[in-house]
Amino acid sequence: MTDATSSQISRTSYDTAQARSQALEQKIATDPSGLRMLTGDRPTGALHIGHYFGSLRNRVRLQDAGVETWVLVADYQVITDRDVVGDIRGSVRELLTDYLAVGIDPERATVFAHSAVPALNQLMLPFLSLVTQPELERNPTVKAELQAAGKSAMGGLLLTYPVHQAADILFCHGNVVPVGKDQLPHIEQTRVIARRFNERYAGGQTVFREPDALLSEAPTILGLDGGAKMSKSLGNTVMLRMSADETVKRIKKAKTDSDRQITYDPESRPEVANLLTIASQCTGRTPEEIAGEIGDKGAGTLKMMTAEALNEHLAPIRERRAELEKDPAQLFSILRAGNERANDVANDTLATVREVMGMVY
Amino acid sequence: MTDATSSQISRTSYDTAQARSQALEQKIATDPSGLRMLTGDRPTGALHIGHYFGSLRNRVRLQDAGVETWVLVADYQVITDRDVVGDIRGSVRELLTDYLAVGIDPERATVFAHSAVPALNQLMLPFLSLVTQPELERNPTVKAELQAAGKSAMGGLLLTYPVHQAADILFCHGNVVPVGKDQLPHIEQTRVIARRFNERYAGGQTVFREPDALLSEAPTILGLDGGAKMSKSLGNTVMLRMSADETVKRIKKAKTDSDRQITYDPESRPEVANLLTIASQCTGRTPEEIAGEIGDKGAGTLKMMTAEALNEHLAPIRERRAELEKDPAQLFSILRAGNERANDVANDTLATVREVMGMVY
Repeated sequence: MTDATSSQISRTSYDTAQARSQALEQKIATDPSGLRMLTGDRPTGALHIGHYFGSLRNRVRLQDAGVETWVLVADYQVITDRDVVGDIRGSVRELLTDYLAVGIDPERATVFAHSAVPALNQLMLPFLSLVTQPELERNPTVKAELQAAGKSAMGGLLLTYPVHQAADILFCHGNVVPVGKDQLPHIEQTRVIARRFNERYAGGQTVFREPDALLSEAPTILGLDGGAKMSKSLGNTVMLRMSADETVKRIKKAKTDSDRQITYDPESRPEVANLLTIASQCTGRTPEEIAGEIGDKGAGTLKMMTAEALNEHLAPIRERRAELEKDPAQLFSILRAGNERANDVANDTLATVREVMGMVY
Repeated sequence: MTDATSSQISRTSYDTAQARSQALEQKIATDPSGLRMLTGDRPTGALHIGHYFGSLRNRVRLQDAGVETWVLVADYQVITDRDVVGDIRGSVRELLTDYLAVGIDPERATVFAHSAVPALNQLMLPFLSLVTQPELERNPTVKAELQAAGKSAMGGLLLTYPVHQAADILFCHGNVVPVGKDQLPHIEQTRVIARRFNERYAGGQTVFREPDALLSEAPTILGLDGGAKMSKSLGNTVMLRMSADETVKRIKKAKTDSDRQITYDPESRPEVANLLTIASQCTGRTPEEIAGEIGDKGAGTLKMMTAEALNEHLAPIRERRAELEKDPAQLFSILRAGNERANDVANDTLATVREVMGMVY
């Protein structure tokens, strides 16, 4: 999340979203029946610990708490900001492997791909009629993504991407969407589309409920080079699929500082704090506690402890991953089953949409 | 067509399109095999003689000449510029009745509705990635339609409508698109999308051929009040479904001028010329010839002749129309058969698109 982005979400709307998110967490803890989570990723390859601690682990937590789980492989979103599709099948395979390795359970979760669900994509048409060009242009996340892609002209798919995301959430009547603060404008756009659809095309009948953002308390893991984000292309990551040895090597090369006294100070010592956060996430101990234990033993000790904690935490995931990799056909058959399920639900939703709009001939 | 619009199509690109259109007419006359026409209308109710002389009759000519005919009921386009869907089923029924009455032959033509063909609509996603926001904004026809709708903010569906139209044409590999000059920017946009798709996502393989515009030589019929266009809501039309008596009444009320000498002079006597054009279209005689025959007998005689010619020409169409109206179930079953055919073709095209993009899991 960039500051430029977050500053464009008004304080009030953030507070309201925060309150709704807290109420949702309460409901998850007491009675998760009727809750359906929609979440997903663009398939651009294997995932790293930034994805894992920042989002995957939280999804598994929600799934295990009894929230019905829908996970979208957003393959069309790969071409919002790049001109080539690349080895998309390979990327999807890696993504599926990571999903299952971390604990997404295909018995309870529906994993599906955008490109395989035409009725979902058709919802773009009525939904596009419910937003104006100025609304699309104002979306701060879309603006930030355009900037990040380093392109001068906004592509049509990037511009309309919040509408596509509304279709993702609303087609399966998702009402729990775990997001970071920077994704709040998308959820707001989805809520507006749901509301306008009901008012304009359904005579006030509630065809679509307004989904709530579940604001994540998961940490943002920085790149090991001190960069704001882990990114495979920058080589500043630990990938879930790496070996223990590779993990040690990557952590050893992580940027730190020369102060041998280890303290948890994210503001002035972000790189050291980042390693402490990773170790904390793996062990369940607080970063401060870990820092205290290391004391003045310096960055070398911090790195060793972090790498060990990480390898220990990831060991069972990596073991499952190695097993899963042996049978890619099985992975794709899980995706196909999810696609089938998603098509059933999307066809039902589209039938309702066509009916309330009178487009039944 | 407004002048503001046509002036924005460069002379060169118009000349090129014109040359391609002439070559196409040649091919239609000599060997129409392999030609597929895509055409259609927004279902906003029954059609009038402006639609008939301006476009329907030409479609039937092409169908009868052996061009494979696909006719789209563009139901989602009804909400590009209005907030209500209205009685869309009723409008579709009227449209189907008019289509069949004028000679669209369901044995040879595929009549289908947007909302019933999800795979067609899914093509919006990859196609949106091939155009930029500035390209969408530049489209002069979209600008003109926004202005005509009297709205300040461009809706998302109106903005992206040329991309949807590209999907309409390309999903069925249409290569003949009969249009007026004002629609040329849409065809150009479709050609660009076809070209970019082949280059960017299909490694230069020709998945989509660039369609040609067939520039219509059909006349534009003015409103009977002298307005630039016939429009049901202005009451300045003769509807195909009207009775002979209603037709006489409408033509009698048409605006003319006080010069009893009837001459064909579209520039300075547009209303008189409009009636002469209608009479000419019905009889096959030139407007000048008809004017000469009337001489100084004045507008009353012109109106009587025009109404008679129109009623005579429309009589068999109206007779068929009355028959067709008796069995709306049959009309909708024709649409359903067309939808099925369109789905088969759209599913095939989408399968190819997913395959060349590598989105096969």
